[in-house]
Amino acid sequence: MKGFVFQNPTKIIFGKGKISKLGEEVKPYASKVLLVYGRGSVKRNGVYDEVTKSLKENGVTFVELSGVKPNPVLSKVKEGIKIARKENVGAIVAVGGGSVIDTCKTIAAGFYYDGDIWDAFVGKYKVERSLPIFVVLTISATGSEMNGGAVITNEETKQKFSFWTNASYPKVSILDPSVQFSLPPIQTLNGAADAIAHVLELYFDGTPNTLILDELSEGIIRTIISSTETLIKSPHDYDARANLVWSATLALNGINGTGRNGGDWSSHAIEHSLSALYDIAHGSGLAVVFPAWMKYVYKEDVAKFARLARKVFNVSAENDEEAAVKGIEELKEWFRTIGLPVTLKEAKIPEDEIEKVVENASMRTPFGKLKRLYPDDVREILKLCM
Amino acid sequence: MKGFVFQNPTKIIFGKGKISKLGEEVKPYASKVLLVYGRGSVKRNGVYDEVTKSLKENGVTFVELSGVKPNPVLSKVKEGIKIARKENVGAIVAVGGGSVIDTCKTIAAGFYYDGDIWDAFVGKYKVERSLPIFVVLTISATGSEMNGGAVITNEETKQKFSFWTNASYPKVSILDPSVQFSLPPIQTLNGAADAIAHVLELYFDGTPNTLILDELSEGIIRTIISSTETLIKSPHDYDARANLVWSATLALNGINGTGRNGGDWSSHAIEHSLSALYDIAHGSGLAVVFPAWMKYVYKEDVAKFARLARKVFNVSAENDEEAAVKGIEELKEWFRTIGLPVTLKEAKIPEDEIEKVVENASMRTPFGKLKRLYPDDVREILKLCM
Repeated sequence: MKGFVFQNPTKIIFGKGKISKLGEEVKPYASKVLLVYGRGSVKRNGVYDEVTKSLKENGVTFVELSGVKPNPVLSKVKEGIKIARKENVGAIVAVGGGSVIDTCKTIAAGFYYDGDIWDAFVGKYKVERSLPIFVVLTISATGSEMNGGAVITNEETKQKFSFWTNASYPKVSILDPSVQFSLPPIQTLNGAADAIAHVLELYFDGTPNTLILDELSEGIIRTIISSTETLIKSPHDYDARANLVWSATLALNGINGTGRNGGDWSSHAIEHSLSALYDIAHGSGLAVVFPAWMKYVYKEDVAKFARLARKVFNVSAENDEEAAVKGIEELKEWFRTIGLPVTLKEAKIPEDEIEKVVENASMRTPFGKLKRLYPDDVREILKLCM
Repeated sequence: MKGFVFQNPTKIIFGKGKISKLGEEVKPYASKVLLVYGRGSVKRNGVYDEVTKSLKENGVTFVELSGVKPNPVLSKVKEGIKIARKENVGAIVAVGGGSVIDTCKTIAAGFYYDGDIWDAFVGKYKVERSLPIFVVLTISATGSEMNGGAVITNEETKQKFSFWTNASYPKVSILDPSVQFSLPPIQTLNGAADAIAHVLELYFDGTPNTLILDELSEGIIRTIISSTETLIKSPHDYDARANLVWSATLALNGINGTGRNGGDWSSHAIEHSLSALYDIAHGSGLAVVFPAWMKYVYKEDVAKFARLARKVFNVSAENDEEAAVKGIEELKEWFRTIGLPVTLKEAKIPEDEIEKVVENASMRTPFGKLKRLYPDDVREILKLCM
């Protein structure tokens, strides 16, 4: 196990009916906020009404920014920064999933930065100041509700990049599992794939002797698998939903990342090129890329891949090599069975455009910890996605 | 799963050689601190020198309170409050395990309270203000380095009581596993038993549908068991030590307690009577009491006791009843095998003084969540400790 610093100050308020707590949490920080949401589902499912009621009851006024889309874009962030400055808001309230939260984190950082906030994504600006951020989570996937990371796409340059700062942890995140009852089924599945990928990016970074972290990781994945299977049949099962929601948050709140080498993150890097170019759902992209990445790199740490196979998929095998290979197949098969794409074709990505993806990914190569990947490696992994 | 609020602001700095970071963490909070430690082991193993060097290098002066003993006492707390006030310190630095940390938390709270700080333990005073607390951990057991709880014994009234407040979370805790290489073996074992008990108090509180929390809990216990077994043979195994240290912190940092009913805590309550009366090590007392409590109450939730048996001790059984009973025996046998007492006699507690223990415990009865316990129940559980 490696040395580490861990601190996660985000306050989580979890449970049915808890959105009503929002106003009293925001009030000590701001009397006027920028309220950010997506393309209107929060108006249909009642969440918008609950949020605005709670703000009003606590005397918090708000201006709005709506229309944040999946794979959120820099232009929307800039629109938000303008409004936030013009209206001189004291905090940002994100009502949505990772796309909305990450848009808010970037607006909150950009509020205090005179240059182009894209600088934070390309290493030219270190975010140390941010407006306070509050979250009402409506889809579990990215874990952004309890961490300091944000992923944004620059439409002009086709770059889907990220930053991570201590200043960007939400002050408070409200997680009401019941608001996810009405999600389109594919969004629950995409969220599950994203959360599993987060756990595995950390799990497979090559750090030895991380037993406690591996135990936590495997427990999170088993819970995600079991809860997702229940929700496919019964989307309104509160307890399955609650277990999935909290697992997806824990997947990337830092706890299972302590003592490791920072995570591998190659699959995320490759997937970010897919969604930057083809605007596919991140979770679906990961279901395609992750098993292919595993196949390409598992020989770097056969014992660890065998451990995952045995602990999560109950694989029995003669040796670690066989277990590792079977485990990778099991994960891919699970993605397929629940209804996610596992090939480029199934994700509607033209197989003859692999070079475009390699070129996009090469803006970030080399990446990866378990195995350092260069454009040629990315090409080979993409071939394994066919 | 139940609704919950979770926030744990403590910053953890983990790893070999990290004590040198103490001074720079304390400096922004205080230029003069009260430095508290136990009965001198920190002077023998070099930790005291590392701590004072780091403080001096950062211009932080200190006054000292030494001699804190296991089952820490109120008189020592009062001595500390006097010094802290007289010297007008700005923070408290705990160098030790749970006894030292809990003494510091109580001094830090008492600093701002005009009455008798024992009031906080008997519900007459709600702690909302505290001096900032910094921890250098030298023995893993109580988890106090990353939570808001404190347990103190009032020698006059023979009450071993506790409080838990948001104001009492340490600002920073430094966990260097290598400083525990030189611990007497029994202290590592006592710490392991205490940490396991914390996980199980939460695990067995009767809340249904807590899969993610149970997965985390079982993973923590399996890691504690495996790491402890390694350390019995090789006390200087850094990775086993690191896994045990971090597991013991996670056992009571709140994560695996989210979504539950607050924990049962009956075994802790009964054990606190044992150590208040006979000054035995808390971990050893728990090794005696916990399996007896399990035997007495398991019928309240047979399926959960069976789950523990299967997931942690790989018990195979025809049915849940058989599994549950076997699992309880396995835990008791594990405590016995590693060298902890599992009966009153082995813990050197006179069997004919059970009534004294029942009487002491009756100051707190009824307690327990899975089964509400009254003095007669406590007596029956103590009989099962024979």
